[in-house]
Amino acid sequence: MESDFIAWLRQRVPPHPQLLLGPGDDAAILRLGDRTDCVVTVDLLTEGVDFDLQAVSARRVGRKTLAVSLSDLAAMAARPVGMVVAVALPRRGGRQLAVDLFEGLAEMAERYGVAVAGGDTNSWDGPLVVSVTAIGQTTAVGPLLRSGAKPGDRILVTGTFGGSILGKHLDFEPRVNESLLLADRCRLHAGIDTSDGLSLDLSRIAAESGCGAVIDLDRVPIAPAAHELARQQNDGRTPLDHALSDGEDFELVLAVAPEDAARLVSEQPVAPLQLTDIGEFIVESGLWQITAGGIRQPLQPRGWEHRFD
Amino acid sequence: MESDFIAWLRQRVPPHPQLLLGPGDDAAILRLGDRTDCVVTVDLLTEGVDFDLQAVSARRVGRKTLAVSLSDLAAMAARPVGMVVAVALPRRGGRQLAVDLFEGLAEMAERYGVAVAGGDTNSWDGPLVVSVTAIGQTTAVGPLLRSGAKPGDRILVTGTFGGSILGKHLDFEPRVNESLLLADRCRLHAGIDTSDGLSLDLSRIAAESGCGAVIDLDRVPIAPAAHELARQQNDGRTPLDHALSDGEDFELVLAVAPEDAARLVSEQPVAPLQLTDIGEFIVESGLWQITAGGIRQPLQPRGWEHRFD
Repeated sequence: MESDFIAWLRQRVPPHPQLLLGPGDDAAILRLGDRTDCVVTVDLLTEGVDFDLQAVSARRVGRKTLAVSLSDLAAMAARPVGMVVAVALPRRGGRQLAVDLFEGLAEMAERYGVAVAGGDTNSWDGPLVVSVTAIGQTTAVGPLLRSGAKPGDRILVTGTFGGSILGKHLDFEPRVNESLLLADRCRLHAGIDTSDGLSLDLSRIAAESGCGAVIDLDRVPIAPAAHELARQQNDGRTPLDHALSDGEDFELVLAVAPEDAARLVSEQPVAPLQLTDIGEFIVESGLWQITAGGIRQPLQPRGWEHRFD
Repeated sequence: MESDFIAWLRQRVPPHPQLLLGPGDDAAILRLGDRTDCVVTVDLLTEGVDFDLQAVSARRVGRKTLAVSLSDLAAMAARPVGMVVAVALPRRGGRQLAVDLFEGLAEMAERYGVAVAGGDTNSWDGPLVVSVTAIGQTTAVGPLLRSGAKPGDRILVTGTFGGSILGKHLDFEPRVNESLLLADRCRLHAGIDTSDGLSLDLSRIAAESGCGAVIDLDRVPIAPAAHELARQQNDGRTPLDHALSDGEDFELVLAVAPEDAARLVSEQPVAPLQLTDIGEFIVESGLWQITAGGIRQPLQPRGWEHRFD
């Protein structure tokens, strides 16, 4: 499983004088100049798993591939600078796919001021594979890591959760501008983007920070799409279940000191995007839920993980 | 075809204040700090096209994938700093493949002082796909581009050419150290690595530099593997044909002023790796050959191009 492999990898990767942050966060940080840090992240999307070209244009795939990487930079509070893309194109129809992919990438790049720096174009007899590497810079306030949450910090989230498969997983906006603005407004202690599922990604911040987290279930902002998906699937999973585990919301989960959290929630500086306080980081490790009744119980982190054996 | 698409892409990519060098060279250059340039290149390898897991271990694939990207950095006379890797793993046996790939990558990374910074691990029902992004820094002498050759410059090459499919295409050494040493010793005007074929890659330097190139066929250093391959295939192609077009030699082709070229050939500063003068850049555009008889004729650039339509 992906998480086991990453745990193994982190043990195995040697230290390097220019590697400020290695595998295990949303992006890596390399020191290039005296005071210049390069934030780098790569994402690979495959036809059949991440998108279905029968249902979705290559343009939207291109848009999404870059947006996923920009969401990782947002989770680091890094300013995006440039990107490179590598593709494996089916031999037949590959040219038009490449053009459409590029148009989607370019649209997203322009929107966030990202330079389209280069790439590698391959063809083969397999399905479409796209890999985007995004490069950013840290700002004056430094990078936002997963590991800085402190017991007592509030859990702040942007936007709403669940049901992204109904459309948001393709057309989401990476929270690049929001992340930079919030990091400028107050000291963010830790952050992650919800690519795999709110509960799973929150449990990762807690684990990296050596603490636990308790979610007030009544406060989780549930997307209309989560209600719609629960209705469509009618399998006993509630809209809240979807919000906690669907993933690909690409929203931010942040650890913020209580006084800053109260101020941000009151001021709503990234409106119309909603900032919501959904709970607290605590000393006791693990993920917990609390309901209106006030009873605290363990909460199983759930979400998307790549499986291989 | 790949080259048509890249030509289209270069027209289409908008300028960006931090993009010093965009698509069309061996790597891109992004300006990150006041004086800090990030050199970035991505390569994607697919099972069935670039390697055959029936014949080759995943470890050698990992080693090659990073080496291909390091060869691109060498072609820019950039010092490698770090890398990220994205993989699409078959679900069955993916874990062992991932471990073996990583071991090969790590071995190559350690050899060239490259930080293993992170990656993206995916699984699917398709064959193995590996994409490596390498990041480097320019040195005090600046980057080496394809576009700086001047008529009168000599064509210098490292090593020998042809027949790499017999083994070198997997186990080659990227000319990282040689490139940095040569760039430090004299002003290199232009450079490329021979990933696609000596004649094709040389024609690219010439085209980017707005000049032509003439190869003295008698001086092309032919690898023993080119002789072996010609013998095995017995299809009328000579060892020289293989040397000019096989590709995946991952040697350097450099444009150097005549006096510097004479000095480098005399001193052989990267011995035991041979430096050979194989011809001259000229005013007249196109690629040309000259033989012992002294007759100059057009030479068709040949090599590997990804095809899709």
